[in-house]
Amino acid sequence: MEDRLYKNIPHKTIERLSQYRRALQIYSDKGKTNIFSHEIAALLHITAVQVRRDLMLIGYSGSLRKGYDINDLVMLIGDLIDSPEGQKVAIFGMGDLGRAIINYFQGKRDKLKIAAGFDTNPEKFSHEIAGVNCYPVEKAAEVIKEKGIKIGILTVPGDQADETVRIMVEAGIKGVLNYTPTPVEVPDDVYLEEYNMISSIEKVAFYVKERK
Amino acid sequence: MEDRLYKNIPHKTIERLSQYRRALQIYSDKGKTNIFSHEIAALLHITAVQVRRDLMLIGYSGSLRKGYDINDLVMLIGDLIDSPEGQKVAIFGMGDLGRAIINYFQGKRDKLKIAAGFDTNPEKFSHEIAGVNCYPVEKAAEVIKEKGIKIGILTVPGDQADETVRIMVEAGIKGVLNYTPTPVEVPDDVYLEEYNMISSIEKVAFYVKERK
Repeated sequence: MEDRLYKNIPHKTIERLSQYRRALQIYSDKGKTNIFSHEIAALLHITAVQVRRDLMLIGYSGSLRKGYDINDLVMLIGDLIDSPEGQKVAIFGMGDLGRAIINYFQGKRDKLKIAAGFDTNPEKFSHEIAGVNCYPVEKAAEVIKEKGIKIGILTVPGDQADETVRIMVEAGIKGVLNYTPTPVEVPDDVYLEEYNMISSIEKVAFYVKERK
Repeated sequence: MEDRLYKNIPHKTIERLSQYRRALQIYSDKGKTNIFSHEIAALLHITAVQVRRDLMLIGYSGSLRKGYDINDLVMLIGDLIDSPEGQKVAIFGMGDLGRAIINYFQGKRDKLKIAAGFDTNPEKFSHEIAGVNCYPVEKAAEVIKEKGIKIGILTVPGDQADETVRIMVEAGIKGVLNYTPTPVEVPDDVYLEEYNMISSIEKVAFYVKERK
């Protein structure tokens, strides 16, 4: 497989490929072995054309009669998205949201593992959540280097976001997923993804208001 | 203001307008009264052209010399997004994630309020989180009608998503924000927004892997 080929895949496609894998697993759990683009599309509320276009980008086309082979496609998406040797993730902020993410995510992916949590509250240091130890944030650089963690999820209160992301970057984190309500800045060599829960809720509220 | 005008605003613009408001509030808290499109853009990691295009869609243009008036713009976005009489939200699933959302959101918006939580675990019924009472899910229809709730956030475990969304729709919920890992279905008159945390983490992991 030519790695170069994948350099130009749009961000949104990568996100959808991950969602396709999730949809494929749901169908696979139901005992299906083959699937059509419109079935994936229906589950994810997008068009079949979009699904076909994304899968053509990664060089996969199914058979007209039988559709896509689910196992093949799950493996192909895995080859693209996953790192063969696995990747490690740290959670910064072990409050409700940090704990929710650990319980939600841990064990769901072979190649992606939450390997440490960090907090400022000493009461949390003695606890382990779903196999994840919580360390004082002062030890971030040490723990992150030792464990080879490259990905960090930011779940601290908004007023601690700036300082915490600085600590993350200094510790060697190369990809940040920011769940705080505060936009943050990272150097050019760090990938940043921000998600604002309030905007999602406001969007739903807007469409409910409009439909009255 | 002509309501008709707003019917054709793209979903993504609505989401960004909510993010602009957040950015404007951050600048306003710092004592600024005027702002340029490139300043909003920088905070949200998008282009100034995108910001200007979105604001033109809602009929707002700033002055070349002084930029946008922050207060005017916050009010204009509020007129568009918010419902004058306010809207109420219910959380289905009062686990870590449900609690995190309540603590994150509650009190941040005048016109949008989390008014009830629902769960199946009786131990949660006696508790109140940031002013939000937790009710048994069997009472959903009754409580939702009584309080006039139209928006529901789904935070139950994935294997309860289908059944819970059915209960939500039957109870009169008209907008669903699904945070479970399981895609759900709603009738045509219900607005659905899904967010898959695992896909966000995988996307960050992919770009970290590619940059090695």
